[in-house]
Amino acid sequence: MTIRDIAKRCSVSVSTVSRVLNNHPDVSAASRARVLEAVREAHYVPNNSARDLVRPQSDGIGLVVRGVGNPFFTGVIQAIERAIGGAGYNLVLHQIRSEGDELRAGAELARSRRLLGLVLLGGRFDYTPEQVALLDVPFVCCSYTNSFGSLAKDAYSSVTIDDQREACRAVRLLTEQGHQRIAILLDSTQDSSISQLRYMGYRQALEESGLLLDKSLIGETGSFDMAAAYETAARLLAGRRDVTAVFAIADSIAVAAMKALHDLGRRVPEDCSVVSIDGIEMSAYTVPALTTLAQPQEEMGERAVRILVDMIEGRGRNQHVLLKTALRPGETIAPYQVFASGRM
Amino acid sequence: MTIRDIAKRCSVSVSTVSRVLNNHPDVSAASRARVLEAVREAHYVPNNSARDLVRPQSDGIGLVVRGVGNPFFTGVIQAIERAIGGAGYNLVLHQIRSEGDELRAGAELARSRRLLGLVLLGGRFDYTPEQVALLDVPFVCCSYTNSFGSLAKDAYSSVTIDDQREACRAVRLLTEQGHQRIAILLDSTQDSSISQLRYMGYRQALEESGLLLDKSLIGETGSFDMAAAYETAARLLAGRRDVTAVFAIADSIAVAAMKALHDLGRRVPEDCSVVSIDGIEMSAYTVPALTTLAQPQEEMGERAVRILVDMIEGRGRNQHVLLKTALRPGETIAPYQVFASGRM
Repeated sequence: MTIRDIAKRCSVSVSTVSRVLNNHPDVSAASRARVLEAVREAHYVPNNSARDLVRPQSDGIGLVVRGVGNPFFTGVIQAIERAIGGAGYNLVLHQIRSEGDELRAGAELARSRRLLGLVLLGGRFDYTPEQVALLDVPFVCCSYTNSFGSLAKDAYSSVTIDDQREACRAVRLLTEQGHQRIAILLDSTQDSSISQLRYMGYRQALEESGLLLDKSLIGETGSFDMAAAYETAARLLAGRRDVTAVFAIADSIAVAAMKALHDLGRRVPEDCSVVSIDGIEMSAYTVPALTTLAQPQEEMGERAVRILVDMIEGRGRNQHVLLKTALRPGETIAPYQVFASGRM
Repeated sequence: MTIRDIAKRCSVSVSTVSRVLNNHPDVSAASRARVLEAVREAHYVPNNSARDLVRPQSDGIGLVVRGVGNPFFTGVIQAIERAIGGAGYNLVLHQIRSEGDELRAGAELARSRRLLGLVLLGGRFDYTPEQVALLDVPFVCCSYTNSFGSLAKDAYSSVTIDDQREACRAVRLLTEQGHQRIAILLDSTQDSSISQLRYMGYRQALEESGLLLDKSLIGETGSFDMAAAYETAARLLAGRRDVTAVFAIADSIAVAAMKALHDLGRRVPEDCSVVSIDGIEMSAYTVPALTTLAQPQEEMGERAVRILVDMIEGRGRNQHVLLKTALRPGETIAPYQVFASGRM
């Protein structure tokens, strides 16, 4: 007898059963009575398999976070935890490294913990139907979607920003100020993931302004590690006073790049402008404050959980939500100056 | 029949049962056979209470995090999650706000989710035996201990740094350079918590150097929010060119203070030195890089889980571990200069 069976028997949602069992106030008296009656009636657990006795269906929702330590995720995880708790479920957290496989990890977690559903935070963008078939519970891709994969739209859910469009918008903030030699700092141009999409947005913005792509302005960090970002930025920008602007695909990379510019003796923004995407709290307090397109961390987490809970409770189906960023104005963009100090 | 009962019946640890059920390889053939036999024999669940049928003992360990969004906790949570997973348990995450009650939240979580134990991250320092009696599972205080409370040493476990000693050490880095008018930025001087302990360390360092306490140099932020830290620092330091050094009790407060100093037209460290405690990644990339006493985030999380798992599996008892910080040298401390620019 699982919480799901009780819900079905009473024709109420799983979260209603959960609320009754946890003595939450927001349940009607009729539902509460029906649930408690059903629980009392359940005198024994049907013996489906020996294992079910030890691990019955939980009321857990799994959160698999890929890319340990990404400061952008902190706010999203908070929102997810709040939303899951608010719906009467509990959050089972599992973190994997950047090179880990979130589908395999999620499938194992869901099976061994008998979870009701999964939120995948920061996963790959190129799932195939065969890979996703590993998962036998509903799932939502949070902060990404299946841009490079072959999933049918109704085979998965996602809540994300439009990475290419937002990157294009960020780079436009630089071209509008007259910048022409704009470097990009990203994980990789061909990762079939967030970096590649934002790279496509960068190229789109250059094309719109009639600027040619210059491969020497592409800095691939190979990771989202700040030390790697610092080294890449320092290598790319050393002796390149013609580069007057940098687009970093994440705030943490931008902060490392600003440090590298400083250590190279270049002022931000007078000698080099910087813009990025994320909007974490810390980057508002750098000197100078980072100009960034802030992702709606709270809304991203909340919407992902809402879609998942609706599916778990039989009310909803797979959905795709595209959110927008909001410009958080900082102090790191200046107009292009032909005669800026020491420019070649 | 719970996973605990199976373990007891087989004279193996709970994590061994968990590993067998999850097909982990690192279990001896004999133990595996014994566990599977016991699981097969368990044909029904004894009906202790109707509720137990719906929610049998889980293999979950709860993590209650108090103080949402503290970037220092990110690394600790990662270590805790890894250690719990490595021991064969799963992590049930619950976050509460700074003003929340982690004991009540932990007790409710443990009861409703039937958890085996709790890690409390960032809780109060003044528990009484009556308050702790709420908890009927083993628990470990992570990053704090019962300095202001009345618990017997053997009634709880803790893994923490010595906040007073480490704060004294941080301030000594300033007095050793000749600084005399040293401001402190903290949550509150009388919170019976981390702020108060670090305030005691600040006072101790002043006394050691024969410096008098000056109340006008104490900036109480009222929270660990960066916006509040910025406002407090800006208010305290405006027009106070006699203040040549700042001790911030956390990296996030220090970063906000550096921004405030910059906005007041004061250079760090030439006009004002800054030091703090934490050692988060981001503060190594500020301009200038923050000098801070780094807490051992990984070790803190790992040790807390090890103590808890030992208690859950009947091998250990309550313990208290005191860890040390390591100086992460930055660029924010300079010697005191009598004739520094504009000093009164």
